[in-house]
Amino acid sequence: MERILISGPADPRLDDFRDLNHSDSRPDLPGGKGLVVAEGPLVVGRLLESRFPVRAIVGFKNKLDSFFASFQAENSGVDLSGIPIYEVTRETLATVAGFDMHRGLLATADRVVEDSVASVLEGARTVVVLEGVGDHENIGSMFRNAAGMGVDAILFGNGCADPLYRRVVRVSMGHVLRLPFAHLEGSYTTWQRSLEELSQAGFHLVSLTPDPAAVHLEDALKGRDKVALLVGAEGPGLTEHAMRATDVRARIPMAPGTDSLNLATSAAIAFYERDRSQRT
Amino acid sequence: MERILISGPADPRLDDFRDLNHSDSRPDLPGGKGLVVAEGPLVVGRLLESRFPVRAIVGFKNKLDSFFASFQAENSGVDLSGIPIYEVTRETLATVAGFDMHRGLLATADRVVEDSVASVLEGARTVVVLEGVGDHENIGSMFRNAAGMGVDAILFGNGCADPLYRRVVRVSMGHVLRLPFAHLEGSYTTWQRSLEELSQAGFHLVSLTPDPAAVHLEDALKGRDKVALLVGAEGPGLTEHAMRATDVRARIPMAPGTDSLNLATSAAIAFYERDRSQRT
Repeated sequence: MERILISGPADPRLDDFRDLNHSDSRPDLPGGKGLVVAEGPLVVGRLLESRFPVRAIVGFKNKLDSFFASFQAENSGVDLSGIPIYEVTRETLATVAGFDMHRGLLATADRVVEDSVASVLEGARTVVVLEGVGDHENIGSMFRNAAGMGVDAILFGNGCADPLYRRVVRVSMGHVLRLPFAHLEGSYTTWQRSLEELSQAGFHLVSLTPDPAAVHLEDALKGRDKVALLVGAEGPGLTEHAMRATDVRARIPMAPGTDSLNLATSAAIAFYERDRSQRT
Repeated sequence: MERILISGPADPRLDDFRDLNHSDSRPDLPGGKGLVVAEGPLVVGRLLESRFPVRAIVGFKNKLDSFFASFQAENSGVDLSGIPIYEVTRETLATVAGFDMHRGLLATADRVVEDSVASVLEGARTVVVLEGVGDHENIGSMFRNAAGMGVDAILFGNGCADPLYRRVVRVSMGHVLRLPFAHLEGSYTTWQRSLEELSQAGFHLVSLTPDPAAVHLEDALKGRDKVALLVGAEGPGLTEHAMRATDVRARIPMAPGTDSLNLATSAAIAFYERDRSQRT
């Protein structure tokens, strides 16, 4: 492992980190390089341990020093050979990235071929299915909370934002790089048919909804072996099409006259209840 | 109820809304007017129904039209007489506020004398106590989630941010204007003594902590009549001083190798479990 000192922002070896607000866009979008970008020691560490092939690491001298001092000690299994490590000044990185990267440590990786739904479901007992969730912060929180409370995988129905977007990686604290995920095929009105694959795999399909006519979450989850929790977008929630394809509609009991909870918070409560129902 | 058409940003009647990023600062801070500021129809409506005396309402013509068309129909009990309603253009409001207020509807109110801890505890069965929570977004989410899941009041220990800051009002969806709150007296190392008042009022004091040695949340809450949930800052959590002053330390069960949940998410799960424990 060798560090390469970079003398200024024009060096082409920093191209992965150039104009960072755009370089994480999906490869099919204009200017999108489709790179996976990790920021800060915790998330860079998780990227190094992940299935994504790391392209480069860049950082300030002191940030690289402290990162590798603790990372190598704890993770002797990760092979860093062949990964270029670029040492830059704060000014250089700010010019390259397009804004001040105060964390001072970044890494990029290539995307990999996405897992199939079947492979993601194999061995899983709790999965989340998202529909129409376009907010990166909500998707990031979803991964963080899912990982924290023992959810095995996240499946994406129609209309969701890209889970490998830089902000999702950051908000998820890198868990999007660890927790399996896959996309269900189909359009706005047809993707719901692919839920059949989950039913056939033995999953009890539970729609999360604020509808007062729905059953309490705890009753919907009680005694179930495999569970798929469906969560819709903030505001509109799940489509009627999606809810019809599920076994039960469940709600978190709410005080009268209040608003429904934030999407990621509702889902976190469902993850908690699911975990709880398996313990008792 | 009469609308006053304002012709330009220099009009002194718009002074409440001037330089809005500063006017909500606490009155004891330089430049702080200490106003309560509500943004958007939902929160402006909640401000009008609240205990805070409304000073003025400002909005674009179409936003005022639609707001009053629906508000008056539903809330005949609110007296709007004497509250000036200023109609402005988008350009005028942007110049006055200092940024583009795309929601186009705002209201200001004066602060009121804060409730005493004793009055807030009266009749309450579930309260939250915050320590060192300086993040406005977390405090706002806390109020939204507390209101949604039947928490009766929020108490502030040492080191918390101002709950009437504009961003808190917005993130709470106006619930900070409805849910009772009060401040416990004392400094970093002494405020914990005021928890004694809660114990004397019959509250079972529960510290929320990621400590793996703590008991499961459900066991800490089971069969309790009155509960006070203590929540500390993101990162450091509760001080040892605070935890020592409580009856039990409780944790949300987490998957190994993951990070603790976000503060507001952890608290929301505790509110859910508290509500659940009272139903069974």
